[in-house]
Amino acid sequence: MRVEWAASRMPVLGAVRKQLSTDRPLHGLRVGACLHVTSETANLMLALADAGAEISLCASNPLSTQDDVAAALAADGMEVMAIRGEDAERYHNHIVQVLRRRPHLLVDDGGDVISSLHRDHHGISPLGATEETTTGVNRLRAMAREGALRIPVVAVNDSATKHLFDNYYGTGQSTLDGIIRSTNLLVAGSTVVVVGYGQCGQGVAVRADGLGARVIVVEVDAVRALRALMDGYRVLTAGQAAAEGDIFITVTGNRHVLAEEHLNLMKDGAILANAGHFDVEIDVKALANLAVGRRTVRPNLEEFRMDDGRRLFLVAEGRLANLGAAEGHPADVMDLSFANQALALRWLVENHGSLTSQVYVLPTELDQMVARLKIEALGGRLEELTGEQQEYMSGWRSGT
Amino acid sequence: MRVEWAASRMPVLGAVRKQLSTDRPLHGLRVGACLHVTSETANLMLALADAGAEISLCASNPLSTQDDVAAALAADGMEVMAIRGEDAERYHNHIVQVLRRRPHLLVDDGGDVISSLHRDHHGISPLGATEETTTGVNRLRAMAREGALRIPVVAVNDSATKHLFDNYYGTGQSTLDGIIRSTNLLVAGSTVVVVGYGQCGQGVAVRADGLGARVIVVEVDAVRALRALMDGYRVLTAGQAAAEGDIFITVTGNRHVLAEEHLNLMKDGAILANAGHFDVEIDVKALANLAVGRRTVRPNLEEFRMDDGRRLFLVAEGRLANLGAAEGHPADVMDLSFANQALALRWLVENHGSLTSQVYVLPTELDQMVARLKIEALGGRLEELTGEQQEYMSGWRSGT
Amino acid sequence: MRVEWAASRMPVLGAVRKQLSTDRPLHGLRVGACLHVTSETANLMLALADAGAEISLCASNPLSTQDDVAAALAADGMEVMAIRGEDAERYHNHIVQVLRRRPHLLVDDGGDVISSLHRDHHGISPLGATEETTTGVNRLRAMAREGALRIPVVAVNDSATKHLFDNYYGTGQSTLDGIIRSTNLLVAGSTVVVVGYGQCGQGVAVRADGLGARVIVVEVDAVRALRALMDGYRVLTAGQAAAEGDIFITVTGNRHVLAEEHLNLMKDGAILANAGHFDVEIDVKALANLAVGRRTVRPNLEEFRMDDGRRLFLVAEGRLANLGAAEGHPADVMDLSFANQALALRWLVENHGSLTSQVYVLPTELDQMVARLKIEALGGRLEELTGEQQEYMSGWRSGT
Amino acid sequence: MRVEWAASRMPVLGAVRKQLSTDRPLHGLRVGACLHVTSETANLMLALADAGAEISLCASNPLSTQDDVAAALAADGMEVMAIRGEDAERYHNHIVQVLRRRPHLLVDDGGDVISSLHRDHHGISPLGATEETTTGVNRLRAMAREGALRIPVVAVNDSATKHLFDNYYGTGQSTLDGIIRSTNLLVAGSTVVVVGYGQCGQGVAVRADGLGARVIVVEVDAVRALRALMDGYRVLTAGQAAAEGDIFITVTGNRHVLAEEHLNLMKDGAILANAGHFDVEIDVKALANLAVGRRTVRPNLEEFRMDDGRRLFLVAEGRLANLGAAEGHPADVMDLSFANQALALRWLVENHGSLTSQVYVLPTELDQMVARLKIEALGGRLEELTGEQQEYMSGWRSGT
Repeated sequence: MRVEWAASRMPVLGAVRKQLSTDRPLHGLRVGACLHVTSETANLMLALADAGAEISLCASNPLSTQDDVAAALAADGMEVMAIRGEDAERYHNHIVQVLRRRPHLLVDDGGDVISSLHRDHHGISPLGATEETTTGVNRLRAMAREGALRIPVVAVNDSATKHLFDNYYGTGQSTLDGIIRSTNLLVAGSTVVVVGYGQCGQGVAVRADGLGARVIVVEVDAVRALRALMDGYRVLTAGQAAAEGDIFITVTGNRHVLAEEHLNLMKDGAILANAGHFDVEIDVKALANLAVGRRTVRPNLEEFRMDDGRRLFLVAEGRLANLGAAEGHPADVMDLSFANQALALRWLVENHGSLTSQVYVLPTELDQMVARLKIEALGGRLEELTGEQQEYMSGWRSGT
Repeated sequence: MRVEWAASRMPVLGAVRKQLSTDRPLHGLRVGACLHVTSETANLMLALADAGAEISLCASNPLSTQDDVAAALAADGMEVMAIRGEDAERYHNHIVQVLRRRPHLLVDDGGDVISSLHRDHHGISPLGATEETTTGVNRLRAMAREGALRIPVVAVNDSATKHLFDNYYGTGQSTLDGIIRSTNLLVAGSTVVVVGYGQCGQGVAVRADGLGARVIVVEVDAVRALRALMDGYRVLTAGQAAAEGDIFITVTGNRHVLAEEHLNLMKDGAILANAGHFDVEIDVKALANLAVGRRTVRPNLEEFRMDDGRRLFLVAEGRLANLGAAEGHPADVMDLSFANQALALRWLVENHGSLTSQVYVLPTELDQMVARLKIEALGGRLEELTGEQQEYMSGWRSGT
Repeated sequence: MRVEWAASRMPVLGAVRKQLSTDRPLHGLRVGACLHVTSETANLMLALADAGAEISLCASNPLSTQDDVAAALAADGMEVMAIRGEDAERYHNHIVQVLRRRPHLLVDDGGDVISSLHRDHHGISPLGATEETTTGVNRLRAMAREGALRIPVVAVNDSATKHLFDNYYGTGQSTLDGIIRSTNLLVAGSTVVVVGYGQCGQGVAVRADGLGARVIVVEVDAVRALRALMDGYRVLTAGQAAAEGDIFITVTGNRHVLAEEHLNLMKDGAILANAGHFDVEIDVKALANLAVGRRTVRPNLEEFRMDDGRRLFLVAEGRLANLGAAEGHPADVMDLSFANQALALRWLVENHGSLTSQVYVLPTELDQMVARLKIEALGGRLEELTGEQQEYMSGWRSGT
Repeated sequence: MRVEWAASRMPVLGAVRKQLSTDRPLHGLRVGACLHVTSETANLMLALADAGAEISLCASNPLSTQDDVAAALAADGMEVMAIRGEDAERYHNHIVQVLRRRPHLLVDDGGDVISSLHRDHHGISPLGATEETTTGVNRLRAMAREGALRIPVVAVNDSATKHLFDNYYGTGQSTLDGIIRSTNLLVAGSTVVVVGYGQCGQGVAVRADGLGARVIVVEVDAVRALRALMDGYRVLTAGQAAAEGDIFITVTGNRHVLAEEHLNLMKDGAILANAGHFDVEIDVKALANLAVGRRTVRPNLEEFRMDDGRRLFLVAEGRLANLGAAEGHPADVMDLSFANQALALRWLVENHGSLTSQVYVLPTELDQMVARLKIEALGGRLEELTGEQQEYMSGWRSGT
């Protein structure tokens, strides 16, 4: 039922799936996928099955598996090797099992399957693979630079319809959602300190602002900091902001951006949450060391009592607040990512003759198509260039 | 523990409580209270106990009682007569029991205790009472007009620090929160139809806008509708909006503002939620009659399948979305309401010699004091008039 | 031509004028009006003429007369007694001349004509009068309280469609417009200090915020200050804000809210503007005394050089920035005010039999009608209550 | 005096100028500049003179010259060859004269000086040149691709602190400013159609939204259109929007995006403005042909009367509304551009030994420095990475 609900929020993947059902471009091919086993992923798997593929699925994170979804997919005849809370050994074992099924195509989230393939190629040579995340793409690009990459890979993350929407709109809303669910606090009237003003940080800031907060931005990059100022936020150092903030949200990709020196300055009642990929941004160890008492006061909310009586509150252990204290990105956003995944696999199959072992970005046409389908679903209408205008634009491009 | 967490979000009540602990103005008096038995209410009860009062507490709604909170208060020596899910008979029985304890002061939420007192005065004549809600105040004013009121009552609802903040900021955030929790949808990019542009509707609209929605307002009052237009929203009839909306939120105080004729026009996937006090705003019966299938797809989210295949989704059975699908008003907002409650009881005691049987509004000074304490807690600083300026203002007021 | 342009922005007055042309309710009556002689006022005069009235018009402020407009109206056969820059004697003389023409109806802006009538009734007894401004209405209410009022007066200012829109939307945009025109500065990235958070101040704050400023609010009223905090602004004392602000806007109705002590703390380059009715809010005399040099650097912008080298800049001599440095309220806003004026005169004529010498507010129906016409002009559509709903609402109102 | 006022709004250029005065890196060099001769440009020229340069300045556009500024610079001993309204021959003649002065460095705005140099090198071989605009940079890149470029050129436009701020913040505010100055309309409540959602269009949309408009976006690019939807705007075709808009703003870089077919659908009173570089976006010829009457109703505002009685209004003849009807980008924004210009010239001189004939972008360090100076001027404070964090980031970058 949750898979169906997710489906109702994923119209673009639905449209792509319909086309794949008709064309069946993956007929006779096996897809080995390593993803968070959630209701959104289930809809991607169903689309690939409709495209003719046989599926082997394992988890890209031992903690994110929704067991009921796994069971439902298995009941649909897919091979699902994922159990919530599986240990590291079992986790890696599942990846190996997926590769032993000799998949023609790989879908990766973080790069573990592709790495495993390159360490021990299991006697297989897939047509290609796709990668969902920034982190995974970075690893692949490093491999490509060193000449180590042995198959063509599509960096799905690099499609505009993936990273522009995921980061800004997805992270923005879901991070605030995680904080509200774990605390039930009122955002209006509070001072929210956003540490990091990249795409994710901008999304978090605009939503905090939209909920009535006074926003302070902490940044190390001067151009980003200047944009924050011009966008109407105050820009302070972490040390200055520490004494003013009611809610702190880290989203830098860096470690210990809220460190002991900042924790010492915070007000009684301050709330700490992380929206960055790894749980290193808040120095949780320092927080624990400073505390004379520590307890859980609400689900996903821990209180740390300092010896001067101040209480600091940590959301979801300093892990991603949207996944830890809410439900991660809404299906509406995953819709774009997974439509790109499905199209990427089709593109790999249809173009594999001319592809070499490098990292590809999907053609702009596919990005535009995904965006167009979403626009339609949201009730928007796109304008089209006239012939005369196309000519003018290309003329301008060549410098006349 | 949840009571302590709530306390940490209620600094104004905390400051009032501290003063009450010192002055003990309710020493030797019994307070009979009828309120939602929640962690926020617990903090009010603790403040009244510190003020010297003995407490008898029953529930103002059989479904809102948090049993752990009731148990904790009982363990603190208060008399608590409330069990989650109690039936109507037991509910009224509890009210009568509270009155039989011969309270000197009553705290009411909706008017049931005060009504009961007026139907059968139980041989008592309290010093006075307070009333929390608009609905209750309306009932009391009707009684006063007819000469039926027999004790002085403070309309806590009418304090600016209660109704201005509760309605706009409290309802605004918590309604969107309820919708997000029950659906996990992305608000950005969706069309939100807000039916009703009073204080609550304005709060809902500004938060939907702040989360990236396109907002359409439906109104019957031309002045309110014009403000909605000037605030940058589209203003349409319910019939026009029905075909465009992705999310519908009713907040009018009226019945069937989304009726069969509108349900017939809605898009597949439309979501219906109510933010008005009573569950009459969406015609749920018509929805059920139109549906050929009905099932729960997520907690607090029901799907109604129409015979033309369209699916409409209803949040929390059409009851208040913030209470039904989230946690009601944040403690930060109840802080203001309950500080007013505590001050109102003190005011009743200290002024009862000069009060008659009518509906009072708290003096502006108390409203200002509550606001000042909250400003301090939020890190703001108030300016003060110079003597010269006070003179100028009173001069102006008298028309010079 | 400017009159026609204004007409094109005043659709509500246009619709009212059309109806008046047909019904001619002012046939045979003389209207004596004392208003700012602008292109918007010209359109009101034309509507009254079409309604059958004969017109005598003088200026409500010697400096706001647009001589070309005065000439055009005179050419249309009206009696216009107003010259830009006329001195005080001539100004009062013109008022007396208007009264000597024995008008049946008076239109006032500030209360000078009505005052004059009450000092020396010139042997006339008009059917009634209307008053446009808060200041004028305050004077009239004082007269009514003292039993001095001798004719019925309509407080046009008190119509919701006048004061709600004028203050918030009109003042908000036009004040920022005045500052931008006089300085050509970029609002984004600057710190704007709004002194006073009444309706006008709220309008100024929301527009500064909308242009990308960081907004600080200074308030003496705790409830207003708390709203400012909850709306996402910082709230500081004038002393604290003085050191942080780039642009200061006063809108309090009080005097010297920016005084010597604040001027001493301001940063080099700070800009001072007033949006309050009188030019007393900024202590311009103190500013001049502190300065070692003073000169005009752009139209409507004076530089004051302090002896420590700091330069402070004053917009439009501390007079209303929107009138002094821009063009006052846009015609779109005056449309609502003047439609109310025309309807008020008609209402006076049609009801004069039952009116006594007091201050009236226009019936809600007329307010609603004005709003409805504007909604239509802006492309909005109003919902209507069903019979069932009207019943429910009246039931609720009576307390069931 | 206007030059001084501009200086007070250009703190970054001021700081750079101070450093240049001390170091005098341009000592003994002649700069040939072709720029809009405005008060902002004057401040750049003064900075270059303080750096030791001799200056020859001509206009980059015959219409933008402020003659008083030209005179002031000439009085300061610079060679200024620019007269407002000069004809095409004189304009080109001035360019040639600048080149005949044998400049060591060129500053260009649009590419005309550099083109002229490449057509006829006048026996000179400058150390290098800078280019201010997108258009100019495009021309230079085309030349570089064809191997035709003969000197190193810095694309100042490509510095983040130039194009990110100019386009979004500069164009956004100043376009609305131009429309308000030419019409004095109220933006709140109106429907603003923004044609084009690139950086400039986004800036225009966010300001229209911030002033209370309902915004409709017209786009041909699906990814941009999807962002517009997610940002809370409606997205329609020009044909659909034509019937709904009150104000139309074109900012596409393309021609005839508002064409005859759209003009025919527009409402009476619609206002047309262009924010794109060239005056081709609105089909003004078609507008004139459709009109049965045409006249100027206010400065920079023409009325076109259609034969069906509708009136359409055109701002500033369809030329850039911010330059035509207001004062172009605020000095606060030019501050960033011109600080980059001054630093670019210094960089050319200090690095010319190692430069070849290609298009350079300024090193990130200079971009960061400009941003840092502006942050300081705006009262912000930048955070710094710890050594540990720098290590972590570079580790992450290499893929661990």
